[in-house]
Amino acid sequence: MKPEIIQELIKIVGEENLYTTLEDLYCYTYDASFLKADLKDLAGVAVYPGTVEEISMILTLANREKIPVVPRGAGTNVSGGSVSIGDCIVLVLKRMNKILEIDKKNLIAVVEPGVITGQFQREVEQLGLFYPPDPASLAVSTMGGNVAECAGGPRGVKYGVTRDYILGLEVVLPTGEIMTTGGRTIKNVTGYDMTKLFTGSEGTLCVITKIIVKLIPLPEAKSTMMAVFSEMEQASETVSEIIAGGLVPCSLELLDNIYIKNIEEYAKVGLPVEAGAVLLIEVDGDSEILSKQIGKVEEICRRLGAVQIRVATTKEEAEDLWLARRSAFASVSRVKPTIIGEDATVPRSQIPVAVRRIQEIAAKYNIIIAILGHAGDGNLHATILTDEMDREEAARVEKAIDEIFVLTVELGGSLSGEHGIGRAKSKFITLQTGKIGLEIQRKIKHALDPNNILNPGVMFGA
Amino acid sequence: MKPEIIQELIKIVGEENLYTTLEDLYCYTYDASFLKADLKDLAGVAVYPGTVEEISMILTLANREKIPVVPRGAGTNVSGGSVSIGDCIVLVLKRMNKILEIDKKNLIAVVEPGVITGQFQREVEQLGLFYPPDPASLAVSTMGGNVAECAGGPRGVKYGVTRDYILGLEVVLPTGEIMTTGGRTIKNVTGYDMTKLFTGSEGTLCVITKIIVKLIPLPEAKSTMMAVFSEMEQASETVSEIIAGGLVPCSLELLDNIYIKNIEEYAKVGLPVEAGAVLLIEVDGDSEILSKQIGKVEEICRRLGAVQIRVATTKEEAEDLWLARRSAFASVSRVKPTIIGEDATVPRSQIPVAVRRIQEIAAKYNIIIAILGHAGDGNLHATILTDEMDREEAARVEKAIDEIFVLTVELGGSLSGEHGIGRAKSKFITLQTGKIGLEIQRKIKHALDPNNILNPGVMFGA
Repeated sequence: MKPEIIQELIKIVGEENLYTTLEDLYCYTYDASFLKADLKDLAGVAVYPGTVEEISMILTLANREKIPVVPRGAGTNVSGGSVSIGDCIVLVLKRMNKILEIDKKNLIAVVEPGVITGQFQREVEQLGLFYPPDPASLAVSTMGGNVAECAGGPRGVKYGVTRDYILGLEVVLPTGEIMTTGGRTIKNVTGYDMTKLFTGSEGTLCVITKIIVKLIPLPEAKSTMMAVFSEMEQASETVSEIIAGGLVPCSLELLDNIYIKNIEEYAKVGLPVEAGAVLLIEVDGDSEILSKQIGKVEEICRRLGAVQIRVATTKEEAEDLWLARRSAFASVSRVKPTIIGEDATVPRSQIPVAVRRIQEIAAKYNIIIAILGHAGDGNLHATILTDEMDREEAARVEKAIDEIFVLTVELGGSLSGEHGIGRAKSKFITLQTGKIGLEIQRKIKHALDPNNILNPGVMFGA
Repeated sequence: MKPEIIQELIKIVGEENLYTTLEDLYCYTYDASFLKADLKDLAGVAVYPGTVEEISMILTLANREKIPVVPRGAGTNVSGGSVSIGDCIVLVLKRMNKILEIDKKNLIAVVEPGVITGQFQREVEQLGLFYPPDPASLAVSTMGGNVAECAGGPRGVKYGVTRDYILGLEVVLPTGEIMTTGGRTIKNVTGYDMTKLFTGSEGTLCVITKIIVKLIPLPEAKSTMMAVFSEMEQASETVSEIIAGGLVPCSLELLDNIYIKNIEEYAKVGLPVEAGAVLLIEVDGDSEILSKQIGKVEEICRRLGAVQIRVATTKEEAEDLWLARRSAFASVSRVKPTIIGEDATVPRSQIPVAVRRIQEIAAKYNIIIAILGHAGDGNLHATILTDEMDREEAARVEKAIDEIFVLTVELGGSLSGEHGIGRAKSKFITLQTGKIGLEIQRKIKHALDPNNILNPGVMFGA
C-alpha cells in the first residue's frame, strides 16, 4: 500500500486503529473456511473504523484510488468471503459494537454491526424477547457478518433465517455515500426492498453500519428429545412425516453413523455406535401444548422404526442431549486434519435421496463424507474429512464436491443454505443461477460498485 | 399502435387474446386507486398471453421497439400501478391461472401469476396448509399482482406479508430473457436475493410468470373478540400493551368514530355510535391455549378502559363481529363519492400520535378523514372522504395528503405499508428513501431495463 494512502487512512481512523505489520495482516489471510490466502494476497492495511463517517471517508478514498476493500466481522465466514486479496484494505467492523436500542413496544432493536450475535440474543431474552437466528458461530460472530451472509442455524425450520428479521439498514455504498433502507415497521413497500438485497450480499454491495432488527416474543418453554434409528432412510422419512403432520419443531437435527461413532468415542454421551442415524428434536411454545407436541413427534418416530427414544424431562437432560450435537465438529476433527463443511440444501423430501447419493459419491472417490444437517429445512452439512496436504486425495475431494453441487441443483436445492458463496464456491454459482441470473446480478453489482472495489471476486469470481 | 406491431402481437398471442377497441382499452385506464388515465393515455393494445414464451416474445418486441408495457393482474392496484400510459401494451396475466403444485411434504406450492389469491388459500386450507397474506382484495386479486405489490392485510402483525412467503420466481426481464430466482428451500443464499428484490417491484423490473410459495401448517383454531373504547388513545395504548405483553394476535384491527357511526348506520351490527374506537382482535393457534390468550387480551382491554367487550363463542358470532370490519369501506362510500385510502404505516407505539395529528390535519383543511387500520403492525388506513369533482376541496385534500406523508416519515414510518408507490405516490418517495436511496434504485432499474419499457413512471415518476 502506498505510504500516502496509509497516511490518509491514519488521518481518518487514527494510528491506533490501523495495522500494517506482517504479523497483524497475516490474521486476515484466513477465515473459518478452508480457503487461505497466499502471502502475495496479504492485505496492504487493516483498519478498525469507529463511525459511519469514517467508513464513508475510507470508501471514498478506496473508490478514488481503486483499492479493493474487504469488510470483516469476527472472521467466522465459512465460504472465504472475508480473506484478504492482495494489496487491499481490510475493514474490520468490531469496534462498532453497541446495542443502540431495544424497543419492547415495537418489538425491534437497533444494533451496530460489531455486536456479537449471542450477546445480543441474551440481552433481548432478558426482556422476554427473542431473536431466533442461531448460526453455530453465534458466540463469536457479529450481527453485521450475520446480515452480510444471511446466516441461518438449527432454528431455521420454524423461525426462518437472518433475512426474516432485518427491517432496515444503514450502509455505506462503495462510492462512500451513506444510505438507509427499510425502516422500523414490518409493513413497508416504499421502493425496492433494498434491505433484503443487501442482506446476504456478502460484502459486495455495501458496508453495513447499522441494523434494525425485528424481534418476537420469547417462547414460554421448550422441550427436547432424541430418537435413534437403525437406518438413515427411516430418520429422513421421519423428518418429512413430522413436518407433513403439521408439527414444526424449532430444531430438527440429523446425525449420520460416522458422526454418531465419533461423537460417542469423543464425548461418551451414550449413543448406540451401530445406529444409522440420530434425530435431535426440539419443540417450543406455550408450556401447555409442549407435551402434546412431543407426544405426537414421539408417536411418529416410533411408527417409523425408532429403536431408542429419549425425552428430556429436565433442563440438564436437555443439555445432555444437545451435547451430542455440539460435540459433532470437535469429534470429527480428530479423524483428519482438514474438515470441509459444505452446506448444500435440498427440499426436505429429497433428504433420503441426497444422503444416499452423497454416500455413493464418497464411495466412488474413496473419501470420508459425514452427514449432519438441519434436516427440518433440508440444510445438509456434508462434512468431508480429509488432509489438504495429501495432493492426490485433495484432487479426489474436489471432484466429489463438484458432483455434490451438481446433485444438489438436480434435486431442486441450493448450493448454499447459509454459508454463502464467497470465494470458495463462486465457480459453481451459475449451476444454480443460470447464465442470465448471474449476468443480472453482475449488472446490479456494477451499477452500485462501478470500480469493483468492494470484496471483488466474492460471488462472481475473478 | 402501429399496425405492424399489432400484427406481430397477433402472431404471438393469437387474435382472440388481443384487444384494440376503445371500449376494451377503456377498462385499463383505471384500477382500484383514485388515478384515472386520460383518454390520451389509452393503451395501444391489450394482450392476454398464455405462456412464459409468449411473454418473452412480447417483451423482446416491446424492447426492440421501445414500447411501454404495463403488466396487470385483476386491476385491484390501489396506487395506480396498473393504469395505461399512452400508446402502451397492457399485458394481462389472467389466463395464466393454474395452481401447478401443492407439495405437502415440503410445505410449498407453485402457482402461475393469474391464480386468484383467495381461491389459492381455500385450496391449501383443504389440505391443512396455510398461506397467510390476506389483502382486502383477495377474492379477486391475483397472486402475481400480490407478489408485484408485496400485498399485506390484517394478518401481517403475526404472519408477515407476501414477501415472507415467496421462495422463488420465474420472471421475464424487460429484455425478453427468462430468469429464475430462489428455489424450493427456505434456506438459500446463492447469490443476491433477487426473489425479494422482484417482490414488491411493482412491475418495473420484470413480469412474474411463476411463483414458488412457502406454506405453513394451518392453525388449529381461532377466536375473535371486539373491544369498545370511549377514547381513541385508550384503544391505541391497548394495542401497544397487547404486543408488549408477548401476545401476538393474528389480527388487531382498529376503527375510529367516523367508521363506527357509518358502519352502524349501514350494517346495524350493534356498535355504540358514541364510541371513540373499536378494536377487533383475533388470536389463532392450538385450541388448548386460545381461551388463555383471549383471557389475557380481555384483561388488558379492561385495564385500559374498554367500555364493552364481546367475545365470540361460535363461528357465527365471530362472523358477526367481522361483519363490522368488512362493512367499513361500503359504509363510508355512502358519505362522499370519492374515497382515497392511504396506507401510511408507523411504528405501532406511534399510533396515538399519528391518529391525533391526522385528526388535526383533517380539521386544518376542513375535510373528513376516517381512520381504520391494521393497528397491530402500525398500518393505518387514513381514509379521505371527498368529492373529486369539487376542485376547491380537492386542492385542500392534496395539501392534507402531503402533510400526512411528511408526518409519517417524521414518526419513523413508511409512506406505504402495503399499497405500493405506483404512479400515485411517486412524487413523495424521496421523503423516505432520500436522494441517494432513490438514485441507487434508479440505477438498478436502469441496469435491468435500459430502455425503461416496463411500467415507466411507476415508483420513479415521469
